[in-house]
Amino acid sequence: MPDQSAARLLKDELAQLKARLLQMGGLAEERVRAAMRALVAGDEQALEEVLTGDEPLNQLQVEIDNRAFTVLALHQPLAVDLRVIVAAVKINSDLERVGDLAVNIAEASLRYLALPPVKPLVDLPRMAEIAQGMLRDALDAFVRRDVALAQAVLERDDQLDDLKSQVFRELLTYMLQNPATIEASLDLILVSRHLERIGDHATNVAEDVIFMVSARDVRHHIADAAPPTRSDP
Amino acid sequence: MPDQSAARLLKDELAQLKARLLQMGGLAEERVRAAMRALVAGDEQALEEVLTGDEPLNQLQVEIDNRAFTVLALHQPLAVDLRVIVAAVKINSDLERVGDLAVNIAEASLRYLALPPVKPLVDLPRMAEIAQGMLRDALDAFVRRDVALAQAVLERDDQLDDLKSQVFRELLTYMLQNPATIEASLDLILVSRHLERIGDHATNVAEDVIFMVSARDVRHHIADAAPPTRSDP
Repeated sequence: MPDQSAARLLKDELAQLKARLLQMGGLAEERVRAAMRALVAGDEQALEEVLTGDEPLNQLQVEIDNRAFTVLALHQPLAVDLRVIVAAVKINSDLERVGDLAVNIAEASLRYLALPPVKPLVDLPRMAEIAQGMLRDALDAFVRRDVALAQAVLERDDQLDDLKSQVFRELLTYMLQNPATIEASLDLILVSRHLERIGDHATNVAEDVIFMVSARDVRHHIADAAPPTRSDP
Repeated sequence: MPDQSAARLLKDELAQLKARLLQMGGLAEERVRAAMRALVAGDEQALEEVLTGDEPLNQLQVEIDNRAFTVLALHQPLAVDLRVIVAAVKINSDLERVGDLAVNIAEASLRYLALPPVKPLVDLPRMAEIAQGMLRDALDAFVRRDVALAQAVLERDDQLDDLKSQVFRELLTYMLQNPATIEASLDLILVSRHLERIGDHATNVAEDVIFMVSARDVRHHIADAAPPTRSDP
């Protein structure tokens, strides 16, 4: 096989890998959205559907991992292409866990709906919006190789953490004032933790994008972690 | 460079990668152990040390990722070696998150110790023992390429989930009977969630080991996910 057509094939396969990851991201985000919408609407049927609807995401995860492996094994890509594939494998894990967290939200929501309600769900819908936005932007940043957008995702994670602490304090106050709300409040606290973790996964994706594009490791604020540049052209 | 010495070099580098991962696993496990020991002993000083002691683990994570990249880029390994390296990158992420969870345990424990105690910490120490054992066994399974041991780790995760549910029910009962214990109980519930997540990370590692050794994907019970065998010898 001449080199040029091998290069074109690799490019095609990378494009397909990216397309599948975007599809996976869309599915994961949709599941979080469905769970939160059902919680707000008190729709138990819709929550049950979130609980049992994990299969397409799981299938896609396995397919993406297999694709990444096949590209690595057949093309033995170097430098930036290699970083794209390793980033894809990591992002794939993060997206699958976002799907799991949608299930966790649905479980807590079903328990919550069986109890006397606490009050208008404090800031949970806002947390969900931020987390979903972070996820979407992190994936956009991946596809567009946009370091500035990835950086903005990292900054939004603090907002989410602050809201989580605020939700916790508010619900604790309800529980202390009215112990009849303990169980329902606990479930809402759990939902807020799940949303925070979705933000953490979006943060992981954003960090992978920055590493992928700039070969710069932004985790742990290590400024000069040496990237493997020896094989770069 | 003659092929034989390249093969030896690759073997050496894979051995070093494994050694570093074991070191990382030991560090992560030790941090969980230190946090739990300090919680049981009521030792705030030791908890503060867990809070601020994340740096060695973070440095090691970056080093391991860079090593894995360099091996991928320089040796372009195939088949089983490729699977070892991709497994190493994933396991590395999981271990770093175990370190983060030790910090989360220390944070919840510090809050807990500032409050009137609930009672002898329910089953949290037992959960910690199981989670640490799972992590240790998953890493042993990685080094020894031991699928049976990895499988046993997967099975123990249910024990941990059951204990988590039991801890939750017990603490909920305390809170309902005595609202003065709400805050302290909440912190213990959070500790139990953190321990459960450590078990989840051990489960991820065990799944990666099974995939690495047998090229069989045990996630999501997909029996015949096609491994990338086309380039296998």
